[in-house]
Amino acid sequence: MFSFNVEHQDAQSAARSGRISTIHGEIRTPVFMPVGTQGSVKALTPEDLLSLGVEIILANTYHLFLRPGHERIARLGGLHPFMHWQGPILTDSGGYQVYSLGALRKISSEGVSFRSHLDGSNHFLSPELTIQIQEALGSDIAMCLDECTPYPVTYDYARLSHELTRDWAVRCKKAHQKKEQALFGIIQGGTFKDLRKESVEAIMNLGFDGYALGGLSVGEEKAARQEIMAYILPLLPDEKPRYLMGLGTPEDLIEGVGLGADMFDCVLPTRNARNGMLFTRRGSMSIKRAEYAEDAQPVDPDCTCYTCRNYSRAYLSHLYKAGEMLAARLLSIHNLSFLINQTRAMREAIARGNFRQRKKLFIDGYLGGSVKSFV
Amino acid sequence: MFSFNVEHQDAQSAARSGRISTIHGEIRTPVFMPVGTQGSVKALTPEDLLSLGVEIILANTYHLFLRPGHERIARLGGLHPFMHWQGPILTDSGGYQVYSLGALRKISSEGVSFRSHLDGSNHFLSPELTIQIQEALGSDIAMCLDECTPYPVTYDYARLSHELTRDWAVRCKKAHQKKEQALFGIIQGGTFKDLRKESVEAIMNLGFDGYALGGLSVGEEKAARQEIMAYILPLLPDEKPRYLMGLGTPEDLIEGVGLGADMFDCVLPTRNARNGMLFTRRGSMSIKRAEYAEDAQPVDPDCTCYTCRNYSRAYLSHLYKAGEMLAARLLSIHNLSFLINQTRAMREAIARGNFRQRKKLFIDGYLGGSVKSFV
Repeated sequence: MFSFNVEHQDAQSAARSGRISTIHGEIRTPVFMPVGTQGSVKALTPEDLLSLGVEIILANTYHLFLRPGHERIARLGGLHPFMHWQGPILTDSGGYQVYSLGALRKISSEGVSFRSHLDGSNHFLSPELTIQIQEALGSDIAMCLDECTPYPVTYDYARLSHELTRDWAVRCKKAHQKKEQALFGIIQGGTFKDLRKESVEAIMNLGFDGYALGGLSVGEEKAARQEIMAYILPLLPDEKPRYLMGLGTPEDLIEGVGLGADMFDCVLPTRNARNGMLFTRRGSMSIKRAEYAEDAQPVDPDCTCYTCRNYSRAYLSHLYKAGEMLAARLLSIHNLSFLINQTRAMREAIARGNFRQRKKLFIDGYLGGSVKSFV
Repeated sequence: MFSFNVEHQDAQSAARSGRISTIHGEIRTPVFMPVGTQGSVKALTPEDLLSLGVEIILANTYHLFLRPGHERIARLGGLHPFMHWQGPILTDSGGYQVYSLGALRKISSEGVSFRSHLDGSNHFLSPELTIQIQEALGSDIAMCLDECTPYPVTYDYARLSHELTRDWAVRCKKAHQKKEQALFGIIQGGTFKDLRKESVEAIMNLGFDGYALGGLSVGEEKAARQEIMAYILPLLPDEKPRYLMGLGTPEDLIEGVGLGADMFDCVLPTRNARNGMLFTRRGSMSIKRAEYAEDAQPVDPDCTCYTCRNYSRAYLSHLYKAGEMLAARLLSIHNLSFLINQTRAMREAIARGNFRQRKKLFIDGYLGGSVKSFV
């Protein structure tokens, strides 16, 4: 049903490329998963995603639980037919949104009580319920409920947080029944290496189909994040997918892949697009800048995405300023295309054995605003 | 360059089908023109429009004049490459929006002064300027500046309004130089038949490439509108296209075609879509109604548009309630598909000689909510 095979292991780094199989299709890794928060990757159809080369999307359990409700989606055949996406879907546990969006949240060993950000109604999310919801949605990969440890926290808080995450992982694993759905465990422990190590051991001992590194990109410094990534990723089993949750800048992707990560998700490419921020081979650009108002060039002259093939910076600048919905769509297409192409280029470089050289070129180019590379 | 040929004349009504040729392609009539107010048919790409069978779009001179400016668009090669639409474009004169959106507008025989609805800046639109703007945009069909006579008005006001429109038409015709761009005259005169007749004669005497009936659907009763349409359309020359401005409900289209009209435009299908209102073969429906929240059927079970082929009412209801941009896109696709298919079905019925019978079936079905017909 669910399987993962490493196909190429880079000799000079921990980077690897591989293939995840699910009943809804194969996913080539490293992979970036666009976020379809409410059962829709904002402004895009499934056909748009397929034409970009998207192989898996993420949907948010919290949002779909509150609206339209997982039971309703189940009665309509599950999330795949509901949203007309036939490829693989990963659902998160809902925990992250409970902490970031829910009001009056109260965490106990039993679970989390919170009020809906939509209508203030009271809810209680337990490890068992999150599994029940994800099984009803019918995703291909489900996630355990975790506490996404905030930053900064004390050592004692981080310990309790990882222990809670571990206890909930036990209950999620026990509750999970759907054989064709993979279940991933989540590592917590904040920025404390010994807690992270404890968390890895506890979660690994339970045995999951894949392992996710959670609690990153929550405010910690880049150096601290990279240190944790470099320390923890090698501790995870080679034969299972490694998922870096919530990371999705071009730099994050390349750094993470270099350290052995296989899967990424982030709202950044689509949210940035809706705010006029674009990835390019020479760094990020804001379509809002006055200099683009009469610029006949495409966003990124080296890009072959639908948007860059057909529209000028001037037109996109106009659409953005005029508040036209088409702006969000065209800019989202470009940003997703950029990340999807980057993952494809990384896979190719890993297969060819020149990942490390191209990584350096990419970082020099992307962060230095000069060299073109990787995508 | 620009030509119009009637190909079929219905024996039992004034309905006719034909073909308009422009340097950007052919348009089969009767035709519905989706409105791309700011150089974008909201939420849709040109490829979406082509796949719906759209053959001509309308763009608004007022909006593009204020933002991004016609001179900028001209420097970028004109409106066609700017918005990546290679088919025919009709531009309105800007007059209607000056009256409906501009502040502090003041009409004199010279033209109209107004303040921009965007930034309050002062502008003056004259017959000569509207032609200059439309030539710079490079549309295939330009419209004369008119005063869209409000409703209700006194007889004296309607007379002055039609005389002003006539005088401006003289100046527009004189200012117009672009040979490959057609120029249409506009008939005004309110709901007064003798003034409408005077207007027709004055505008026809000037000689235009097509004739538009303006000042309809501005608040008058349906019976009064139909009376004017039935009275005026037969007075227009058979060999030129007849354009019913601002009319675009399914009923308007079929009534107008039955009276000999060839061209229609309206923001209704796309604006209604953004408000959750849909055309169906059994009348209009609101996707907001609670009964659709778990309805697995498509919007219109007999419709073959992309939206109806792939999405349930339940999913569209969810997208709409969740404020997802995809709702506007999918519902706009359905509504435009409905009108475009209706025009195609009307053309076929005219060619086959059964327009009148099908018109009755359509009206019974659409307004009665029972019979399926025409589209």
